Amino acid sequence: MSIHTLNTPAALIDVARMRHNIDRMQSQLDKLGVRFRPHVKTTKCKQVVEAQVAAGACGITVSTLKEAEQFFMNGVRDIVYAVGIVPTKLPQALALRQQGCDLKIVVDSLQVARAVADFGREHDERFEVWVEIDVDGHRSGIQADDDLLVEVGRALVEGGMTLGGVLAHAGSSYEYNTRAALVQIAEQERSRTVRAAERLRAAGLPCPVVSVGSTPTALSAEHLEGVTEVRAGVYVMFDLVMHNVGVCDLENIALSVLTTVIGHQEDKGWAIVDAGWMALSRDRGTQKQAHDFGYGQVCTEDGRVLGDYLVSGANQEHGIVARVSKPDVNITETLPIGTRLRILPNHACATGAQHPEYQAVNTDGSTEAWPRFYGW
Amino acid sequence: MSIHTLNTPAALIDVARMRHNIDRMQSQLDKLGVRFRPHVKTTKCKQVVEAQVAAGACGITVSTLKEAEQFFMNGVRDIVYAVGIVPTKLPQALALRQQGCDLKIVVDSLQVARAVADFGREHDERFEVWVEIDVDGHRSGIQADDDLLVEVGRALVEGGMTLGGVLAHAGSSYEYNTRAALVQIAEQERSRTVRAAERLRAAGLPCPVVSVGSTPTALSAEHLEGVTEVRAGVYVMFDLVMHNVGVCDLENIALSVLTTVIGHQEDKGWAIVDAGWMALSRDRGTQKQAHDFGYGQVCTEDGRVLGDYLVSGANQEHGIVARVSKPDVNITETLPIGTRLRILPNHACATGAQHPEYQAVNTDGSTEAWPRFYGW
Repeated sequence: MSIHTLNTPAALIDVARMRHNIDRMQSQLDKLGVRFRPHVKTTKCKQVVEAQVAAGACGITVSTLKEAEQFFMNGVRDIVYAVGIVPTKLPQALALRQQGCDLKIVVDSLQVARAVADFGREHDERFEVWVEIDVDGHRSGIQADDDLLVEVGRALVEGGMTLGGVLAHAGSSYEYNTRAALVQIAEQERSRTVRAAERLRAAGLPCPVVSVGSTPTALSAEHLEGVTEVRAGVYVMFDLVMHNVGVCDLENIALSVLTTVIGHQEDKGWAIVDAGWMALSRDRGTQKQAHDFGYGQVCTEDGRVLGDYLVSGANQEHGIVARVSKPDVNITETLPIGTRLRILPNHACATGAQHPEYQAVNTDGSTEAWPRFYGW
Repeated sequence: MSIHTLNTPAALIDVARMRHNIDRMQSQLDKLGVRFRPHVKTTKCKQVVEAQVAAGACGITVSTLKEAEQFFMNGVRDIVYAVGIVPTKLPQALALRQQGCDLKIVVDSLQVARAVADFGREHDERFEVWVEIDVDGHRSGIQADDDLLVEVGRALVEGGMTLGGVLAHAGSSYEYNTRAALVQIAEQERSRTVRAAERLRAAGLPCPVVSVGSTPTALSAEHLEGVTEVRAGVYVMFDLVMHNVGVCDLENIALSVLTTVIGHQEDKGWAIVDAGWMALSRDRGTQKQAHDFGYGQVCTEDGRVLGDYLVSGANQEHGIVARVSKPDVNITETLPIGTRLRILPNHACATGAQHPEYQAVNTDGSTEAWPRFYGW
């Protein structure tokens, strides 16, 4: 198949851009002297993860146990499930470990730490557990200076489990857009997580792994002293949110949605395309950023950015393409029926999730289907 | 399986509520004396569509040719593909018709009407084509009084195709929330579509079908003189957007996402749940409505609405549950780790699309997996 013959809508991966993004992150972390553990939730795609591992990644991060199961089947052993475990999911985690998967699980409460230890002893399994650290008030985790941190660590060790390390994610880094602010939040993520590790060690507990990461902080950190590994996901594709944060150019965005113009409302300067929110996702992550890209930036079929033409509205299978600065009264001539366009997405994780497969596009325009999975 | 043993997150369908919603719409349209053609894009689920057909539906509406293919395989013959066709999709439409599917396609431009006629004659296929009418400036379609309407109709007939009728969708009905406004937009949808049909007939062209519909207008129309069929989709599940529009109660919403509390941020009054935007969708359809439900309304595991506890934030696999009126400082006691909750969604079409299957919940709490498909 070629990009010109694909059915639309379709999720395209520009393979050259993807490889560039993978190499950029891997070199950055090689330079900083830490291991890299990509978050595969962005693509849930075997071929993408193989490229990440080939470039030097050490293990992967997952957001669901299904991702762990799928990638373990594909030969990845070293996996951290970076969402706080609940007792009802322990049998699924146990099954993975019993099959030989080096699965690490995460806790941020005494109640769950004890439940893991009880369940582990009951099933003769020494779970490796990492403690989640809250470095920015963004979501889950224990603050580095909270007494609870040592209590949780101790409950795990005394309960016979392996205390593998600490893990943090500076999710608030998505809210900044200057180099100075990103350097600062990266340093905050690093220093607070390292502090948590030091507190555990000072209490006589082990803490071999110090794991931090988000795409903006990973690309902005100036040093990572005390950190052993970094996690990041969306960097592999990038998207308009990351462009607004300031960590990529539009030309780095490797994911786009191929679509066809199916009609017009000439008076309004609208072209109607066959990519609605089902193909683009409902993500409006740029809505509150400095540059609101609507439901996506319009590009030509070969990937050239088309000025300020955006997907300004989206229904399930209809997108509305309009010029933002001034309605294009010649829209029927600018984008005639049948014109094929690429739409750069707000959020690569959300847009990818709408598609059963990617179409990997090589530099000669040939394409290859790369399946992705979904569900739990 | 039972609702108490399902893995979370999971998309639940309350079967009793669904049947009530199906019966309500079917009786309304029986009373108004028109056929009902449900839009299956909401669920893409065999079992749901079987219940709609059993209740009296005549044919279905689809938003993708894949839906047409899947439901034709399941035995539905009478299908309208309600998104404007483009020439590149004609081979797929042709294949369906050649297999015996009574597929109707839709156009709203002279260019595509001619392309359909040319392609049809070339392949010896008399396509049945409906002309899309714009009744509210919402999206696609030709205005009822535009000369283009008759030109398109004539191009189809003279090109040897079957002019099957006119089709409209008052998508702007979602923007209203009073009975009076809904009655008015329903009447506008009806009168303009009927006017289009009359103009075609006055020009000596056939127009047997007059098809209108949206969930709000279908439930608000006081009469449907001149209309032959109605289409609606989301009524089968309902959602918080429809609740805000005023066409259902919270107790009618048949779709919810089952989730588990995995942690807390006690100081902030947050419970963290394992349903993030991947399970709930990124849809924030209530954001601009009178009542903003965040990412969803929290209910107990058995479906009782939990005051003003909402999913106030969502990451990919994490949701943040908080009380809107005042942070719940006892959140760890109100919703302890392991608590299972149901989340009512903003938009049933978007939330369903995130899940490979529904779990149909019977009144005794037993569950059954109902698969749904996705993609194009």
